[in-house]
Amino acid sequence: MKDELGESFVIGAFTSAQSMPQWVNTGPGDDAAILSDGQVLTTDMMVQEVHFDDSISPESLAWKLVAVNASDVAACGARPTWTLLSIALPEPLDRSWVERFSLAFNQRLKTLGIALVGGDTTRSPGPMVLNLCMAGQLEHAALLRSSAEPDQDIWVSGTLGDASGGFHLDSSVLRERFERPDPPLALGPALAKKGLATAAMDLSDGLLQDLQRLCEASGCGADVDSDLLPASSTLQAATPDVLPHQLGFGEDYELLFTAREEKRQEIEGLGLSLALRLTRIGRTSSSSGLRIPGCETIEAWTHFQEENS
Amino acid sequence: MKDELGESFVIGAFTSAQSMPQWVNTGPGDDAAILSDGQVLTTDMMVQEVHFDDSISPESLAWKLVAVNASDVAACGARPTWTLLSIALPEPLDRSWVERFSLAFNQRLKTLGIALVGGDTTRSPGPMVLNLCMAGQLEHAALLRSSAEPDQDIWVSGTLGDASGGFHLDSSVLRERFERPDPPLALGPALAKKGLATAAMDLSDGLLQDLQRLCEASGCGADVDSDLLPASSTLQAATPDVLPHQLGFGEDYELLFTAREEKRQEIEGLGLSLALRLTRIGRTSSSSGLRIPGCETIEAWTHFQEENS
Repeated sequence: MKDELGESFVIGAFTSAQSMPQWVNTGPGDDAAILSDGQVLTTDMMVQEVHFDDSISPESLAWKLVAVNASDVAACGARPTWTLLSIALPEPLDRSWVERFSLAFNQRLKTLGIALVGGDTTRSPGPMVLNLCMAGQLEHAALLRSSAEPDQDIWVSGTLGDASGGFHLDSSVLRERFERPDPPLALGPALAKKGLATAAMDLSDGLLQDLQRLCEASGCGADVDSDLLPASSTLQAATPDVLPHQLGFGEDYELLFTAREEKRQEIEGLGLSLALRLTRIGRTSSSSGLRIPGCETIEAWTHFQEENS
Repeated sequence: MKDELGESFVIGAFTSAQSMPQWVNTGPGDDAAILSDGQVLTTDMMVQEVHFDDSISPESLAWKLVAVNASDVAACGARPTWTLLSIALPEPLDRSWVERFSLAFNQRLKTLGIALVGGDTTRSPGPMVLNLCMAGQLEHAALLRSSAEPDQDIWVSGTLGDASGGFHLDSSVLRERFERPDPPLALGPALAKKGLATAAMDLSDGLLQDLQRLCEASGCGADVDSDLLPASSTLQAATPDVLPHQLGFGEDYELLFTAREEKRQEIEGLGLSLALRLTRIGRTSSSSGLRIPGCETIEAWTHFQEENS
């Protein structure tokens, strides 16, 4: 499910020579762009045969497309408000598919309070392609991935590895977790409102890769206790070896955030009030790099991830 | 270049059961969505083998992608301000293509004062797919396609049919007009500021289809004098039969607008000050439908368009 090859080259080509106007607080690089008026913007493209295959139902695809984009907005501390949909459909048009997808898409948007304000529809001579652009509004200072400091707690929401289990293992419950991720959309805005987090990002590419990005953006390192990584009982029942699923692959769309030690009690209280499992998994450090006992080398896990994606 | 088949079905599926929140002034249906804070939003997807083929240079494709989206924003009376780019690239990655495209894309955005605030890059197992989401900010009342009234002037900017000529005829000058449309981005905001237009939209699908849409949205009809339709000397030199090119095909991205008769002199003055050719081509009417002497039936032209697209 990854498409890392050349991605940084392409991003660099578009961003390296760019100078941002003053009203862009955060440009390409974080989960979403942040404008000085508090608007948070993200876009995510899903391509058939790259991000999904024909085994996914139109309802689950609609769910996932919304979740992936909403997660980026919420990870910055904003509540998603509007979206634009572009869709390229293979011919001949499968009207039943379109009806099922649009119904589920609109229902999901309605549940989350997001308005579909416009879009574009076209045909595709190849795969189906879906693109969402989604925006949210910050009511407090944004959560960035670049503002963690050494000697702070590292937290994650929910459980890790279920999406990987759903993709790699034979479990319909985990498959549902892979196809219909449920990002904790209220958590980012609540952390921002209460000033509880020093940095945050959503876990789309796996803890290993995403924590590395957060640390690099913040200029720090991290020590993670792999025994503390939260796993669902379903994943534990499905495999004796949960760690690779928790570290690699990604697509859990849980929130990774850092916080000062004195905020522990408040964060635990917030988890209770939002009915979200929040787990401290380690500490940031002034020495760069990730240290995860039980994970021999980062390369080995990256290899696992590439082999299995 | 058209993909009408099933488009209205798809759009209907996404919009029919939707209820818009109060802060969305104009939802799907106009050139762009308009929010109550004056933000204007559009999205446009371009698919290889549908909207362009390999004969187009990366520079021209970048130009056209920006122009198509900026035209929608400006047609509502707003100046484009930011954009998000999603791009799905076939493998293996053609780095030289990416470098040329991104350079031209960034240069064009810089010229037009538009900031690339974020994006998404992925691979495609089939055609290249490009999607822009673009926003602008209204400083005055928006220009809508639904607010024309009977007995008003119908105006167009520039010349009509050059893009069609560039696609169908053997002319490198017209080909350039097809590949690098230059929408009059200052015109929409200026008309809005001075309150000179009663309705407006950009000419993306040809005068016949677009004027029909404007009339249907406004609940009026139109009488057009085909002798008044502006044609470039290049198009006239390339074919003795300019009318089908002026009416069908589209992709000129000129502005179509309606105005009260007493505004003629002011509009002519605006054209002079912006160095834009502005031509009165007919009148709106209380009797529905389009009447264009020399154009026997609308169906015949639509057929021409479908056959040649």
